[in-house]
Parts: sequence; C-alpha cells; structure tokens
Amino acid sequence: MARVTAAQRREQDAGAGYNAFVEACPSRKLLDRISNKWVALILAALGSDDAHQPDSACAGGPRAMRYSELARLLAGVSQKMLTQTLRSLERDGLVTRTVVPTVPVTVSYELTDLGLSLYGMMRGLKAWAEAHMDDVLAHREAYDTRLA
Amino acid sequence: MARVTAAQRREQDAGAGYNAFVEACPSRKLLDRISNKWVALILAALGSDDAHQPDSACAGGPRAMRYSELARLLAGVSQKMLTQTLRSLERDGLVTRTVVPTVPVTVSYELTDLGLSLYGMMRGLKAWAEAHMDDVLAHREAYDTRLA
Repeated sequence: MARVTAAQRREQDAGAGYNAFVEACPSRKLLDRISNKWVALILAALGSDDAHQPDSACAGGPRAMRYSELARLLAGVSQKMLTQTLRSLERDGLVTRTVVPTVPVTVSYELTDLGLSLYGMMRGLKAWAEAHMDDVLAHREAYDTRLA
Repeated sequence: MARVTAAQRREQDAGAGYNAFVEACPSRKLLDRISNKWVALILAALGSDDAHQPDSACAGGPRAMRYSELARLLAGVSQKMLTQTLRSLERDGLVTRTVVPTVPVTVSYELTDLGLSLYGMMRGLKAWAEAHMDDVLAHREAYDTRLA
C-alpha cells in the first residue's frame, strides 16, 4: 500500500495496517465495493429473519435464497447488475453459490460467516434510510427554500 | 410510493411505511445516496475521535473540519466530488456548513445529530473493510484459482 503519514498511521490500528483514508490502500476499493445499494439490499435479504417468504418454513436468521427470489425481492434490479453483484460477493467470500442440477437448474445464494459479519451494518443502513426518510425530506425542503 | 405486495408490506414496519426493497420508494434512493465510499469517509472523518489532527486540542467525538482538512484526509478525492458530496449531505441534513468571514474565507463542516446517527454505521463499514481486507483477498485468490 501507499506510504502513509504519521497521522494516517495512527488510523490504522483497527485494520491490520489497512486504512481506507489512503487512496492506494486496497481497503479503499473494498469500501467502495461494499458501499453499494445492491450489496446492502442483497445482504439485508439473505440475512433477514423477516417474513418476506410467507410460504417458507424458515424460522428466521440467514437463509438460502434462489436467484429468482432475490430478483423479485430487489424490485427493479437488472439481471446484469444482480448477476455481477452476486458474483463479486461470491468472489470476495461473502456469499456461497449453490447449483442444484434440477431441470431447470436451481441456483441459490447464502451468506458466509464473513458475509454475516457485514450483514448487521447493511441491514442497519437500509433501516436508517427507511426510518429517517421523512426527516431527510424535511431537511431537503428547508434547504431548497433557503436557496430560493 | 409504489403499490406494494402483502409480503413487502410486512417489511415496512420498521420505517414508517418506507421500504427500500420497493423500487419507487424514496428510501431506495436515499439508501443509494448514503451507500457511497465518500459519504462513509466524510462521516468517519467528521465523527471520529481519532487523532488524525495531531495539532488539534480536540478531545474526541464529533468535531468541525475545514474543507481543506477533509480534502487532505480523504486522499485522492476530487474537488468536484468532495464539494458535491458535502452539498448533498448538507441538503439532507447530515452536516452543517459554517462560513467564517476570515481572509480567505474559512468553510467548515460538522455532523448534525442526524449525521451522527449514521456515523456509527459508516465508521463500521470503513473498519469492516480494513479489518477483513486480508480475508477478502484470500477469498479472491481462491476463487480465481478455482476458475483457472
């Protein structure tokens, strides 16, 4: 990674020498990769104990979801974006992909322990956006009024 | 917001009726806006009690930072990107912008309570990327080897 200043070095204690404030540090790219609404929504879906699978016997906690279930839940995601994001999550070790040779083939995704370690924050981001939407809308209105 | 299915409606209890799984819900756009590495780094910087201001008497917790300090800490950020991101954070009510009529003018940014409520997650994302970088790199290598 890039040479860092003394001040930046003090930032690094938590991360085994990585520091996302440093442009050339690989953790900057990883932060970029995980800071993505589709990543947040996929992790929130796979880790969720919510009942958005009403026909499922799943009692809560992380669970496998089929590609088609994810595509339906993440309304509006393109097939290309969903496939790319899942592949990058699989490559990074956050999800496992299981192919069952049914006809047609069934492909399902499940969080790994590493993925589960990120799930709480991703669910938190989604919940934050939902919980503070009215607040943010009010701030935007006030800001735009001040400018006008 | 868009019409939602019964299953999606069950998702909404946490967020006063907003549900980022629904494409047309404004919280989807807000999730997109906050899922951004520059937002994560700006919030991590403004909320941080770390000593990356060695010449500061700041004892920890959220603090005001000058534009130039942020630009230096977030190495590699373009002026356009930093300015746009700060303006959007200000409009959404996450940061306040203070202009002190020195010569030249001093512009500083500080987290609001709303910004502070998101800070923990943003700092968590940055810390997660730093703490799990080696793990992710190992998974990528294994994945690429399997494919080869």
